[in-house]
Amino acid sequence: MPSVSRKGLSMPQSPIRKLVPFAENAKKKGAKVIHLNIGQPDIKTPQLALDAVKNNNLTVLEYSRTEGSEGFREKVAGYYEKHQIHVTASDIIVTTGGSEALAFAMSTIADNDDEIIIPEPFYANYNGFATACGVKVVPVISKLEDNFALPPIEDFEKLITAKTRAILICNPGNPTGYLYSKEEIQKLAVIVKKHDLYLIADEVYREFTYNEEGHYSILQEEGLDEHAIIIDSVSKRYSMCGARIGFLVSKNKEVISTALKFGQARLSPPTYAQIAAEAALDTPQSYFDDVKTEYLQRRNLLISELEKIEGIEVAKPQGAFYCIVELPITDADDFAQWLLEDFRVDNETVMVAPASGFYATPGLGKNQIRIAYVLDQTSLKRAVHILGEALKSYIG
Amino acid sequence: MPSVSRKGLSMPQSPIRKLVPFAENAKKKGAKVIHLNIGQPDIKTPQLALDAVKNNNLTVLEYSRTEGSEGFREKVAGYYEKHQIHVTASDIIVTTGGSEALAFAMSTIADNDDEIIIPEPFYANYNGFATACGVKVVPVISKLEDNFALPPIEDFEKLITAKTRAILICNPGNPTGYLYSKEEIQKLAVIVKKHDLYLIADEVYREFTYNEEGHYSILQEEGLDEHAIIIDSVSKRYSMCGARIGFLVSKNKEVISTALKFGQARLSPPTYAQIAAEAALDTPQSYFDDVKTEYLQRRNLLISELEKIEGIEVAKPQGAFYCIVELPITDADDFAQWLLEDFRVDNETVMVAPASGFYATPGLGKNQIRIAYVLDQTSLKRAVHILGEALKSYIG
Repeated sequence: MPSVSRKGLSMPQSPIRKLVPFAENAKKKGAKVIHLNIGQPDIKTPQLALDAVKNNNLTVLEYSRTEGSEGFREKVAGYYEKHQIHVTASDIIVTTGGSEALAFAMSTIADNDDEIIIPEPFYANYNGFATACGVKVVPVISKLEDNFALPPIEDFEKLITAKTRAILICNPGNPTGYLYSKEEIQKLAVIVKKHDLYLIADEVYREFTYNEEGHYSILQEEGLDEHAIIIDSVSKRYSMCGARIGFLVSKNKEVISTALKFGQARLSPPTYAQIAAEAALDTPQSYFDDVKTEYLQRRNLLISELEKIEGIEVAKPQGAFYCIVELPITDADDFAQWLLEDFRVDNETVMVAPASGFYATPGLGKNQIRIAYVLDQTSLKRAVHILGEALKSYIG
Repeated sequence: MPSVSRKGLSMPQSPIRKLVPFAENAKKKGAKVIHLNIGQPDIKTPQLALDAVKNNNLTVLEYSRTEGSEGFREKVAGYYEKHQIHVTASDIIVTTGGSEALAFAMSTIADNDDEIIIPEPFYANYNGFATACGVKVVPVISKLEDNFALPPIEDFEKLITAKTRAILICNPGNPTGYLYSKEEIQKLAVIVKKHDLYLIADEVYREFTYNEEGHYSILQEEGLDEHAIIIDSVSKRYSMCGARIGFLVSKNKEVISTALKFGQARLSPPTYAQIAAEAALDTPQSYFDDVKTEYLQRRNLLISELEKIEGIEVAKPQGAFYCIVELPITDADDFAQWLLEDFRVDNETVMVAPASGFYATPGLGKNQIRIAYVLDQTSLKRAVHILGEALKSYIG
């Protein structure tokens, strides 16, 4: 029997996936599981996006253009213009989710054994794409006590080698909820220019910010055009994760033409999803205002309820809809599994994401979990209550 | 300015894409271009697939399961059962097009610098995925005078090294139209078992066969379960190329679990497309009968018209909807460009795919073109007439 590849064997598994069988088992036994572990929002997809697909008149479901139609990309450029990001249709490639944009970006700028520096904790699937592309992730540690702010630039400098090709950030961050300031982006701009690196920013949570400064994109920073690559997606923005439409955006023409070659191999992004995504671009600002108000209330409720629990530390997230919590335990993987197997309050329990899977440095994050606040406030409050009771029982 | 990757620089471009600007220019000048170059069928997508999407009742467009829903995969298994391929839902991963299934297969079985043997000429994008995965394509030559039948097994044996991981075939073939016989599949089975290799078969044109024997799948061959990986897609089968739904199918459990890890990184295949594809599985046999009759007529017309042209050699395709033609010229790339730039019959010209891009061995196929017979018979007949006139003028 032929063996599978070393690459395949070393592909990381999501920290949540290991828990899924335990959650399924809990449900089989009749327990209710409140999911704090997933980033699937409960927010309704804008009706105009759903309607565009329902009212489509296709008779032959043809390939679209590899990079998405000119018209669609022009509308996307219009969206960016509203966010003070000045790009044209030719700076944009439509991808199959932000996932594919990230895979294209990595393949476009890095060869086998090249290195990309990423502040940790970071979105676990960055590891997966890096492994698939043969790229080495070099983590730089950001800390809960700083709310996971940008690590000191000296820490980046120490890690840069001849093999370093890029710094990758997620802004606002999954799993940290941290929103980088303009000053932090400027510090990153200086270092990538100094060392001739790319700066890749995953900005899929651009709209989800909860402070006065708001989001500052790497493409708003002047002089960074040749270095900046934005990874973007409609998934969270319009609560349409299942569409699988994202964007790779860069003013660097060689990056775009190279990424396009990877795009050509897979022919085109999905057609129906592009119909939905194009329509979604007309979503009125009031939709985002409502969504943002809802998430802000959820965040405030979550943080204030969590802070009532003794012995835990909570990062104060300013963006996205995630929050890292440090618990007075030593092994969050074990705790998360125990919650699903053995702990119930009125036959209910919670599922959380152990944070160790978001770190590349072994041993880090073992006492942390990630909570996604994508649930209504009543459920969220009950979930935190269950978590508090569970901690008492687990420690005691 | 940071450079792009060596991998990116070496990504091959489709042989057709280089001609696109010339075709666009011809159209701008008012000429009509008959496209013999593309595999986008003009056949209508089954109405029940289109209707399933139009009648969907989603309110939140959520992620689907990474591998596709249990129900969908069970229906897909039922489809295979009808084709004497005995698999279950757990042997199937739903992918974003056959393209992604191929990328997953390559990553699952091969590491950087590993080798995959492919009979040439072959589907040009195999090169793209191989480059993206760091895998080396080792071509074995099949010949027009044999209708591109399986090369002698000794030719494969000579190419097998310690780095060889798989043999990849396309059956029926794009660009050759060749349909492998049961005996040929059995010869391949012997060699992959002998050398402990995988046998990957791209069977996306399974239904499009024009001889009495019909299609023999690698998963119909007994004793090949641990070696066989099928790449499949709904794109051509139901004329829904824009859906982007494919399948990776294998009875080898380690292949499936490893491929699934690559799938997890990209979260899920597109949701709307899965609704369309699941509905398409109920397409009645009469649809295929009609489609097959139509393609058979087109093929027969194409071959008989081509054979009237002096000095050309035509492979007799038994499957898919492609045909390789050898022309009495030395440089088909130049000829194809000249057709678009300089040649007109009643202000019409044709666009063909130069075949050199389907070969990995430098210099091969320089005098060949690929014709896709995905047009109605009237257009097809006119296109061949134009091609004949063009040859007279080009040679003269």
